[in-house]
Amino acid sequence: MEEKTKSKYPLLETIDSPADLRKLPVEELPKVCAEIRSFLIDSLSDNPGHFASGMGAVELTVALHYVLNTPYDRIVWDVGHQAYGHKLLTGRRNRFHENRKLNGLSGFPNPAESPYDTFTAGHASNSISAALGMAISSAMDKESPRRNVVAVIGDASISGGLAFEGMNNAANVPNDLLIILNDNDMSIDRNVGSLNSNLAHLTTSKRYNDIRYKLYSFLKRHHLVTDKGKGLIMRFNNSLKALLSREQNIFEGLNIRYFGPFDGHDVKSLVTVLNDIKDMNGPRILHLCTVKGKGYEPAEKDPATWHAPGKFNPETGELRTGVSGSKPPKYQTVFGETLLELARNDNRIIGITAAMPSGTSLNIMQAEMPGRVFDVGISEGHAVTFAGGLAHEGKRPFVAIYSSFLQRGYDHIIHDVAIQELPVTFCIDRAGLVGEDGVTHHGLFDLAYLRSIPGMIIAAPSSEVMLRNLMLTANQREKYPMAIRYPRGSGKNVEWRQPMTPVQIGKGEKIKDGTDVAVISIGTIAKEVKEAVRSAEEEGVSAAHYDAVFLKPLDNDMLHEIGRMNKPVITVEDASVIGGLGSAVTEWMADHGYSPRIIRMGVPDSFVHQGTVAQLKELCHLDPRSIADRIIEAGKEAQK
Amino acid sequence: MEEKTKSKYPLLETIDSPADLRKLPVEELPKVCAEIRSFLIDSLSDNPGHFASGMGAVELTVALHYVLNTPYDRIVWDVGHQAYGHKLLTGRRNRFHENRKLNGLSGFPNPAESPYDTFTAGHASNSISAALGMAISSAMDKESPRRNVVAVIGDASISGGLAFEGMNNAANVPNDLLIILNDNDMSIDRNVGSLNSNLAHLTTSKRYNDIRYKLYSFLKRHHLVTDKGKGLIMRFNNSLKALLSREQNIFEGLNIRYFGPFDGHDVKSLVTVLNDIKDMNGPRILHLCTVKGKGYEPAEKDPATWHAPGKFNPETGELRTGVSGSKPPKYQTVFGETLLELARNDNRIIGITAAMPSGTSLNIMQAEMPGRVFDVGISEGHAVTFAGGLAHEGKRPFVAIYSSFLQRGYDHIIHDVAIQELPVTFCIDRAGLVGEDGVTHHGLFDLAYLRSIPGMIIAAPSSEVMLRNLMLTANQREKYPMAIRYPRGSGKNVEWRQPMTPVQIGKGEKIKDGTDVAVISIGTIAKEVKEAVRSAEEEGVSAAHYDAVFLKPLDNDMLHEIGRMNKPVITVEDASVIGGLGSAVTEWMADHGYSPRIIRMGVPDSFVHQGTVAQLKELCHLDPRSIADRIIEAGKEAQK
Repeated sequence: MEEKTKSKYPLLETIDSPADLRKLPVEELPKVCAEIRSFLIDSLSDNPGHFASGMGAVELTVALHYVLNTPYDRIVWDVGHQAYGHKLLTGRRNRFHENRKLNGLSGFPNPAESPYDTFTAGHASNSISAALGMAISSAMDKESPRRNVVAVIGDASISGGLAFEGMNNAANVPNDLLIILNDNDMSIDRNVGSLNSNLAHLTTSKRYNDIRYKLYSFLKRHHLVTDKGKGLIMRFNNSLKALLSREQNIFEGLNIRYFGPFDGHDVKSLVTVLNDIKDMNGPRILHLCTVKGKGYEPAEKDPATWHAPGKFNPETGELRTGVSGSKPPKYQTVFGETLLELARNDNRIIGITAAMPSGTSLNIMQAEMPGRVFDVGISEGHAVTFAGGLAHEGKRPFVAIYSSFLQRGYDHIIHDVAIQELPVTFCIDRAGLVGEDGVTHHGLFDLAYLRSIPGMIIAAPSSEVMLRNLMLTANQREKYPMAIRYPRGSGKNVEWRQPMTPVQIGKGEKIKDGTDVAVISIGTIAKEVKEAVRSAEEEGVSAAHYDAVFLKPLDNDMLHEIGRMNKPVITVEDASVIGGLGSAVTEWMADHGYSPRIIRMGVPDSFVHQGTVAQLKELCHLDPRSIADRIIEAGKEAQK
Repeated sequence: MEEKTKSKYPLLETIDSPADLRKLPVEELPKVCAEIRSFLIDSLSDNPGHFASGMGAVELTVALHYVLNTPYDRIVWDVGHQAYGHKLLTGRRNRFHENRKLNGLSGFPNPAESPYDTFTAGHASNSISAALGMAISSAMDKESPRRNVVAVIGDASISGGLAFEGMNNAANVPNDLLIILNDNDMSIDRNVGSLNSNLAHLTTSKRYNDIRYKLYSFLKRHHLVTDKGKGLIMRFNNSLKALLSREQNIFEGLNIRYFGPFDGHDVKSLVTVLNDIKDMNGPRILHLCTVKGKGYEPAEKDPATWHAPGKFNPETGELRTGVSGSKPPKYQTVFGETLLELARNDNRIIGITAAMPSGTSLNIMQAEMPGRVFDVGISEGHAVTFAGGLAHEGKRPFVAIYSSFLQRGYDHIIHDVAIQELPVTFCIDRAGLVGEDGVTHHGLFDLAYLRSIPGMIIAAPSSEVMLRNLMLTANQREKYPMAIRYPRGSGKNVEWRQPMTPVQIGKGEKIKDGTDVAVISIGTIAKEVKEAVRSAEEEGVSAAHYDAVFLKPLDNDMLHEIGRMNKPVITVEDASVIGGLGSAVTEWMADHGYSPRIIRMGVPDSFVHQGTVAQLKELCHLDPRSIADRIIEAGKEAQK
C-alpha cells in the first residue's frame, strides 16, 4: 500500500530557486511552464488573486530566470500582477497559498520578502526609472562584474508619463538597461492611448523584424558578425525596417534599440533571443506579444473578468461569485449610478477615469454616454490637468481615481485646479484600508495631502445616501475643487436609491447625544464607531457621536458644541492618524481656546501590509472593540 | 516749442487688445515685433524678470494673436516665461512695469488677471493636457462656433511625463488641438533627454518638409486640393517623408500630424502657416525653431545667463549684479559646495537634478564629477524613482528639487522610496515664500505632504552650518528617506565653511531661555523669530526660543520641557499653517497630556501671489514685528 502518489508538479517541485531551474535542459522548459500554469490555476481557484496577467507572463518569467543570473542580475517587474510565476520560481512555492493574506506573501513584488523582488511594484510605470537607477549603479561599479538589469513593463503601464520620463532618460545616459515590453494589448480594462495603437502597428511590421532577426542570427552562426559589430548591424537593420515598412516606431524615435515583436509564449525561442541580446551594450527594448490568461481558455476569452476573478472552479472555469439578491451595493455602484443620474440632467458633467472604468464603475455612465466619459489610460496627472481644462470651459468634470493612485496627481490638483478655483470634483475611490492589495494600495494619505490645499473642499460620506447627496452638492457649486472619498466594497443600505438632497458645505451631523465623551468620525468608519458607542453604553459610558462629513471646511457650530462639553474628544478616521481629521480637530480646539483631552484614532504612522480589511482594522485598532475600549477608558476617566 | 516727442513704440501704442493688432496689414507685423523687443529690453533692464524666453517667442506671439480670434480662441502657454509679449498685446502694456511686483502683474499667465490668460502656467508640461480639455469641451458644444485651442510648449517642457500623457491622449480622442512646439534647443540650463536629440534630427530633415509644404501650398493656390482633402495629402506626405528621410518622428509615432520645422522668427510666414493649418481637423503639431534671446545679441550669445538676468544696461548688455565681496553665500551655494565635499569622501554619493543644475547649484559637483551628477530633465517623478533604484543598489542619492516642483514626485516618494525605507536624501530647495515667481513657485506644502509619510525624516536648518551638518547626518544613515528643506537666496553667515559634525536625528536646539512664552521655529525663519524675541524682551516679555530642526521625528525631550513650562506656545514656520510644525506640536501636546495655549504662525490657508519675500512675509504676518506682537500679546496674557 506504499504506492507513491504521483506529483502533479514533478519538475516544479525540484525548483527551490532559479539556480535549480538553470540546471534543466532547455527542452524541459515548456513542461515547467505547463506546471506553473497548473499550479496557478489550482492555487488561485481557491485563494483568489490576480489571474490573467500572471498566466500571460509564464514563459517570459521562466526564460528570464533561466538566462539571467538572478538575483545578482535584476528583474524589475512593473505592476506585480504578472509576477506570480516569479514568486513560484524564487523559493515561495510552498507559501503561495498565503498569497495576499495577513503575514503571508504580498500580492506584488516586495523587496522585504525576497532578494529576487527588487522593487516595489504596486503603482504602474515605475519599472524603467527604478531599473535605470540600478543599471547606472552597476555601470559605475567598474570593479564588480556586469549586472544585467531588466525592466518588464506591460503595454498599459508604458503609456504612463513616468515610463516615458524613464525611457527618455535611459536613451540619454550611458547604460545597458534592457526593457521588455510585455504586450498583451490589454490593460486592466482595455487599452487606451495612442502609444497603444502604435504598438499594434509595430506588430503588423513583424515580417521585417523576422527578416532582420534571421539575417542577424545567420551572420552570427557563421561568425560573420562579432559582438562588437552587432550593434551596428542592428541599427542598420532598424533603418532598413523604417525604410521598408513606412512605420514610425516611437522607441526608435527615442533612440532606444528595438527588437521584436516576438512570440512571448515560445519559451525556447525566448531563451535564444534573451541570450542573444542580454549582454549587448546600450539601452534596448524587446517587444513580446503575449495573451492575457494564456493557457486557460475561459481567461483567454474574457481577460477583463479574469483580471482578478475571485474563486472559481478550476475544471469548468465557473466563477464562484457570492449569492446575489438584495445585498447592499458597492460604493462604486452607488457612485456610478448616481453620476449617470446627475449627468442625465446636466450636460456639463464629464466623467474621467485613468484606466479603471469598471473598477470605479464609471462604465455605468460610459455605457449610456460614451462621448462624455474619458478613459485617459494610466495617467493620473493628465486626468487631473485635463479636468482642469474642461472646467475652465464651464464643464463639470468628475474625476474618479483610487486614493493611492491620485498621489500621482497631487501637484496637478494644486497647480492645475486649486489655484484657479476650478470646480473639479475628485471622487476618491479605495480610500482607507483596502485589504489584500496591501501596502501600495491603501488610501491613507488623501486627507492629509488634500487638507493643506487652499480652497479645497473635502468630504467623506458615512452612507450611500450621503454619497449621493455630496455628489449632488458638488455639482451645484460654481467654483473650488471638491474631494469626496469613499472606500472599496459594499455599504450597508439596500435602499440606497433615495432622492438626492443637497447638503450645506461644511456642515456635520450629530448622530447621537451623549454626556461623557464626544466621538467625531468621518466617512464609513461611522459604522464601527456606532457599534463601539453601543458597547460603551452597555458598560456605563455615554458617548455623543458626531459625523464630521466635511474635513474642510470644518463645522464650527458642531465643534463649539463639542468644545463646550469639556469632555474627552475622540476622533476616528480610516486614514493616517497624521494630518487628517484628528489633526484638524486638535488644531481647531487649540485655535478656539478649548483644551479637552483629545484622542486621535486612525491608521498609525507606519506602512500597513496586506490582509482582510477586518484584520487590518483590528491591527490598526480601528475595529469596534478597540474603539469601544478607548471610549470607555476616556469616559471612565472623565466620570471621576 | 510744442514739438511732439516721437514715441519709441508708435505701433505698439495703438494696440490695446489683439483686435487692434488684427487691424494692421501683415506687412506691419515685423515692426510690431521690433517694438515689442525694444519695449521688453527697456522694461526688463530696469524691472528684472525672465528675458530670453520671451524674446524668442515674439513673432510667434504676434502671429498667434493676429491669426486667432483671441480670447474666444484659446492660447495655453506652457510655463509663462515666454508670455511677456502676450501680456503686452493683451491690454497690460501700461502695467508691465509692475511685472512680478506685489499687487502688480504675475510673471506667468494668470487667469484671474486676464481672459487672455487661459490657464496657470508656472510648472512645466501641463499645457497639452489643459488645452486638450478645452478643445474637447469646444468639440462637445456643437451649437457654438468652433473654438481653436493652441498649446504652446517648449522643447524642454515637452520632455515631461505629463506632456507625453497629454499627447498620448490627444492622439486618441477626437479633437482639433493644435500643439506648437517652440523649439529653442534650450531649457533653463541645457536640454537633456532623448526626445531632444530627436528634435534636432527633425530639424535636419527640413528639406523634405519644405518640399512637402511647398507642394501643398502650390496645390492649394491652384485649387487642386479642397479643405476636406488636405488632411489626406498631409498624411500622404508624412509617409513620403518617413520614406525619404529614414527619420523616426516621435510625433508621427503617436499619430499626431506633424508640420515643420519652420523658422519661428519669420512672422509673415508664420501667419501664412497658421492660417493654413488652424482650421484643420484632428490634433496637429507645428514645430518652430526659435532662438532664445532673439534680437538682443548678449542674450543670444549666452541664453542661460539671460534666462533671468536681473537688471542690466540696455545699451551695452552689462549686467548690474550687486557688489561682490564678503557677502553671505546663497543656501544653494552652501548645498552645492557641501555636496561636493561629501562626494569627494564617499563615492556612493550621486547628485540628481530635474533640469536645474545651476538653480540648485548642483553644477558645482557636476563640474568636478560629471559622471556622478544626473540632470534628468523636467521629470521630477522620474528623478525620485531613479534615485530609489540607485539607493537599492547601495548608492546614496541626493535629489535637489524645488519644493513646489517636488509635488510632482509625491507618489514616487511614498511608493518608490519610503515603502522600501531607502536612504534617498531630498534636498528641497526654494522652500517657503520665494518672492517674485509667485503663487505657483512658493514652497509651502512640503512639510504637510511629507509629514504623514511613515519613516520619513524631515529637517530644516536655521543656518548654513546646520545645513552642512544635516547633509553629513543624512549621508551617514543606512535607511529611511530624509528631507532637508531650505529657502531661496542668501543666508547670513560669511564664515559658513565650518567642519561638519553629525547631529542626532530628531534633536532640536534651545536658542534662548525665557519664562513667559515658548517659541518654536523651524528653518531659517529663526532669524525673524530672534528679532521678534529681542523686541518682546524690550517690551517686558521673556520668551524662550527653540529651533525644532526636525519636524519628524520630533524632539520629545524638548517638547516635554516646553510642555512643563505651562506657558503659551507659539510655533513659527515659513510654510502652510496647516499640517506642518504647528500641527505636529499641537498634536504632540494633546497626545502627551499638556494643554498650553498654542498659537500657530505660518502662511495662512490661502494662495499667496507675487511680491518680494519681505513684503510677502509681512502679508503673512511672518515678519519680525508681527511675530513680536503675538509673543507680547501671549506673554502679557500669561503674566496676568
